[in-house]
Amino acid sequence: MDNLFDKSSKIVIIGLGVIGGSYAMALTGAGYNHVYGIDTDPNSVEQAITIGIIKSGGDREKLLASADVVALCVYPDDAAGCMSEIAPYLKPGVIITDVAGIKRGYIDAIVSCLPEGARYVPAHPMAGREKKGIDYADSKVFRGANFIITPVGVSDEAAVEAVAKMAVDMGFARIRVLSPEKHDEIVAYTSQLPHALAVALINSEDEDAETGDYIGDSYRDLTRIADINARLWGQLFIGNSDNLIKVIDDFERQLVQIKRAVQDGDNEALERLFCKSSARRSALNEHR
Amino acid sequence: MDNLFDKSSKIVIIGLGVIGGSYAMALTGAGYNHVYGIDTDPNSVEQAITIGIIKSGGDREKLLASADVVALCVYPDDAAGCMSEIAPYLKPGVIITDVAGIKRGYIDAIVSCLPEGARYVPAHPMAGREKKGIDYADSKVFRGANFIITPVGVSDEAAVEAVAKMAVDMGFARIRVLSPEKHDEIVAYTSQLPHALAVALINSEDEDAETGDYIGDSYRDLTRIADINARLWGQLFIGNSDNLIKVIDDFERQLVQIKRAVQDGDNEALERLFCKSSARRSALNEHR
Repeated sequence: MDNLFDKSSKIVIIGLGVIGGSYAMALTGAGYNHVYGIDTDPNSVEQAITIGIIKSGGDREKLLASADVVALCVYPDDAAGCMSEIAPYLKPGVIITDVAGIKRGYIDAIVSCLPEGARYVPAHPMAGREKKGIDYADSKVFRGANFIITPVGVSDEAAVEAVAKMAVDMGFARIRVLSPEKHDEIVAYTSQLPHALAVALINSEDEDAETGDYIGDSYRDLTRIADINARLWGQLFIGNSDNLIKVIDDFERQLVQIKRAVQDGDNEALERLFCKSSARRSALNEHR
Repeated sequence: MDNLFDKSSKIVIIGLGVIGGSYAMALTGAGYNHVYGIDTDPNSVEQAITIGIIKSGGDREKLLASADVVALCVYPDDAAGCMSEIAPYLKPGVIITDVAGIKRGYIDAIVSCLPEGARYVPAHPMAGREKKGIDYADSKVFRGANFIITPVGVSDEAAVEAVAKMAVDMGFARIRVLSPEKHDEIVAYTSQLPHALAVALINSEDEDAETGDYIGDSYRDLTRIADINARLWGQLFIGNSDNLIKVIDDFERQLVQIKRAVQDGDNEALERLFCKSSARRSALNEHR
């Protein structure tokens, strides 16, 4: 293809977990007819073939040599190693994309392993599941979701357009372009902090308290994401530690304000904090 | 009725806000045909009559004198004042119930204003809306929800049964009996803490960050309850300050554990915390 990209382009997905599997499902479902998959677990490849979301797992080196697009759908910490492993087999002009929820250091590591002439388009499909593995792959989670592209020096325009087209075809509603720095800053607050809060909330339960019978929808909503892929989120948190610590600090200061008002019996201060949060939450509903 | 309670019993709801209005709607909908309402705002009474959820607002003193059940659906801080105001008009054997989300001190204040012979059954319908006022009244929110009764010395068995029957008829799925102390301990963790976190989360947003376009479902879920009835929740927080401060402290310690692990780049520690939260959240799904 070189600079052309269409539904006959050959896409190789590396890592058929929940996101890689969902990519395969969404692309095949959208009419891409050369979607292939590679995974260290042969059962995942077998299953992806059986359910008809990849054409084959085939011969790994041959697949890579003819790939127009390679989507790295592995754990963040494994991505650079994977990249340097596959680099020797890739053809010039290949488009590399990824799905990691962190960007800055992650991207630098990938870039340092790219073969000459490869075009790399870092991406973050803002959707997914707490569960892991191909059993939970489901292209429906992409529908209506945000897809963020964080271009770098080795992302040429045609390659960015190709990845954006793939995203639209997979069902993403909005393709947005951000710098890696801005991306990491935003996801620390909108995604990583909520996960940290959910985990801390459920872990702070007094185990003898028999609260299970008395929870309402708000507690369920707040803790849903506490059922978490531990390995993935450990890597995401540590890979974005500066931003995450900053937003945890900001959050802690807000919580202390509430706690102080409660301690002081200061109803007016509490009402001010609640009015502020209400106004902000109402404004949020106007987005989307 | 004295000790008999059925759908012809006369129920007077004081305060036709979102909960009082929903009580009226649910009781009338369940075939209770003597449901009356009192409110300081004549428009709320008028509206309740118009939409057919109360028979009338009628003559306040006369209504109270013939009431079999009085449901106090006013703000927690107003309840004792309201109770002492209506006490002179009530008949012996009347059942008083309430809907407050806090119990200990609240109950003591009510009990001190009860007329001789009144039977008081404190209750907490664990459902509601963030919005306030009769416009948001909707009996559907009760369906499948928990209804907690916290009996005290002046709650005789027949009165507890009458209130439990009302709750079942209004659509509550589970009637549970707790001590006021245990109730306040549990709601601090399952309801008040989640509200505090949601408020602190949304209030900690950097206003210049343009995060609005990049939020996902988890952030939406976690902040939904940050749109809050400020007056009500100020009273609930301060009325349960000891328990609430304790659970905020517990939560803060858990969050600090996450923050330290991130600061130290300690992936193992993070994974341990995440595995714990995942196991707890999965166990929660088995409830309900």
